[in-house]
Amino acid sequence: VSQPPTQSSFSSVRWDGDAVVVIDQRRLPAALVEWRLAAVADVCEAIRTLAVRGAPAIGITGGYGMVVGLDEARPAGVTDAHAELARLEASIGAVRPTAVNLSAALGRVREAAERSGATTPADVRTAALAEAVAIHDEDRAACAAIGEHGRQLLGQKRRLLTHCNTGRLATAGDGTALAIVYALQAAGAAPSVLATESRPLLQGSRLTAWELGAAGVDVRLIADSAAGPAMAQGLVEAVLVGCDRVAANGDTANKIGTYALAVLARQHGIPFYVAGPLSSFDAATESGAAIVVEERDPDEVRRFAGALSAPPDIPVWNPAFDVTPAHLIDAFVTEVGVLEPPFGTSIRRALASGGEVDAAAAPVTVG
Amino acid sequence: VSQPPTQSSFSSVRWDGDAVVVIDQRRLPAALVEWRLAAVADVCEAIRTLAVRGAPAIGITGGYGMVVGLDEARPAGVTDAHAELARLEASIGAVRPTAVNLSAALGRVREAAERSGATTPADVRTAALAEAVAIHDEDRAACAAIGEHGRQLLGQKRRLLTHCNTGRLATAGDGTALAIVYALQAAGAAPSVLATESRPLLQGSRLTAWELGAAGVDVRLIADSAAGPAMAQGLVEAVLVGCDRVAANGDTANKIGTYALAVLARQHGIPFYVAGPLSSFDAATESGAAIVVEERDPDEVRRFAGALSAPPDIPVWNPAFDVTPAHLIDAFVTEVGVLEPPFGTSIRRALASGGEVDAAAAPVTVG
Repeated sequence: VSQPPTQSSFSSVRWDGDAVVVIDQRRLPAALVEWRLAAVADVCEAIRTLAVRGAPAIGITGGYGMVVGLDEARPAGVTDAHAELARLEASIGAVRPTAVNLSAALGRVREAAERSGATTPADVRTAALAEAVAIHDEDRAACAAIGEHGRQLLGQKRRLLTHCNTGRLATAGDGTALAIVYALQAAGAAPSVLATESRPLLQGSRLTAWELGAAGVDVRLIADSAAGPAMAQGLVEAVLVGCDRVAANGDTANKIGTYALAVLARQHGIPFYVAGPLSSFDAATESGAAIVVEERDPDEVRRFAGALSAPPDIPVWNPAFDVTPAHLIDAFVTEVGVLEPPFGTSIRRALASGGEVDAAAAPVTVG
Repeated sequence: VSQPPTQSSFSSVRWDGDAVVVIDQRRLPAALVEWRLAAVADVCEAIRTLAVRGAPAIGITGGYGMVVGLDEARPAGVTDAHAELARLEASIGAVRPTAVNLSAALGRVREAAERSGATTPADVRTAALAEAVAIHDEDRAACAAIGEHGRQLLGQKRRLLTHCNTGRLATAGDGTALAIVYALQAAGAAPSVLATESRPLLQGSRLTAWELGAAGVDVRLIADSAAGPAMAQGLVEAVLVGCDRVAANGDTANKIGTYALAVLARQHGIPFYVAGPLSSFDAATESGAAIVVEERDPDEVRRFAGALSAPPDIPVWNPAFDVTPAHLIDAFVTEVGVLEPPFGTSIRRALASGGEVDAAAAPVTVG
């Protein structure tokens, strides 16, 4: 019997024998409740509505979702089981096309099952589940390594600005950009964080402010548009963001607003760091020009919590992400180390390393 | 008997014999209703809560508010009447310190009464009201001239981005930045406007989207943080904003988020124009460093329409304005013409011109 989640102990996503259980992040900060996803329709709905979000957490949920789908389909034989996994890969992957972690996790689970040499549907399921668990475990380890590498990269910098939510709610571990904050805190370095509210879905207000506050980190919330004067007034020593998809050249798709922060950081001479596991890097995407950016429901901008904040029929342009060109990024913080420019080279070398996690204190600079 | 306001016919502020009547802009876009301010406490409350907002509209409301205050005080003699006006100038002016229009209007009304040579309290009131009406009339004329000068400045540019609300709700006329949009529309030039929602108080969503939509202008709403990719994708040919206070050197205080838009516009080679009447220029403020920026209630960022969007006790940094340095501004559009760099010179010359309105077609370039 599992305990209800608490502020000091929760899992953004976990496997529960025959279902994926996620924190329903739409309910935060008002309520911390789980949602048990025992059908593929629920898995897709949870991903589509951002009940579960954060590129790594979406990947993990999708991986387990393949097993949920297999259980639902009850394939009669091994061939049917593999065909079902291929169908699930396509249908779940279509729900959120921008983050590469989702499609990568789905592909890994399907391929692992195919490679397993399973001779029964039950064996196919066992292989699929093992791969989903591996993805989950790898993410937890990657978060820890990212935190440690980032902590060392920051040196004496303590005044940080972050965007969206890239923490314990977005991953299986301490997060990506926020793992660095938690690593500083664990080392007694007392980080101080400005969190943008991250319109339209307010992941900064609802999630980052909540989880950093719950963890006892010094955090202040700002409107997205207040980041400029915060930098101009010297309140920011480094910007830390996550990533939904990094192209082979370092161009990075991330939550809408990331690009403006990168431009502002460069204008003020403030380092701009992107944190993420290698599973967020996509060697098959040459540059940002090839990244599909989702446009989401206009009502995300027109309404909040059911209340109208704009004329109900006003046209809206609501891209969920933007693309920050590599030249505005000072470094990537990954589980294998800090990647420096030129990113075409450092990203290729990092991906070729096989993603072996170096959780030791010394960061591996893949420059 | 006055008619209720309608979408096609409303006055943001009007004098009604013994009270100022304003549109309660907090209720928009859900309801278009007026609020009759028959006591100074109401005048201050309306300005403080942004029921009436926009630097010019606040100045006009404050000017009439002096008369409301005089009626309330019922001074026994002329000396008492002048003393009361001085008290009102201080108390109403303290409500919103950033916009210069408010303090300038209050000062004009007090001084006009003093200069009038009034020999009875009733004559003091007559002189004060005449000056408030003059401020109101001048703003209406300034809006028309700004619109026309801005229209010519834009040349063939039609794809515009604007921030906050600078239109018919913010002034006595067609607005400042939005007057340019309306002038294009009147000339059959079909402008296309991206309106930022303008967190935290959503003047873009609630007011600009509403008034441009009601006027039949092609308008699309975006999150503040979507301005960067909009510029990167070529959706913006010019940025038009208003101003709350322009320093002698051209540094400009305006709604939080203006600075980031100026940095982004420069990054993309997009002209950044600030529109405002000379009453928003403050020769006594040398540079932006001397501008007091109001910090507002944290709950503006933590809540929307009563609903919690963040932990209720999370610390917030909520500056209402930011300061855009003059070097990021390509031109000011005023009622006397377009002011070009170096702004120290062009602003001084414009203010020395006595603010004579040139509503003729040809813009006076005070370069």
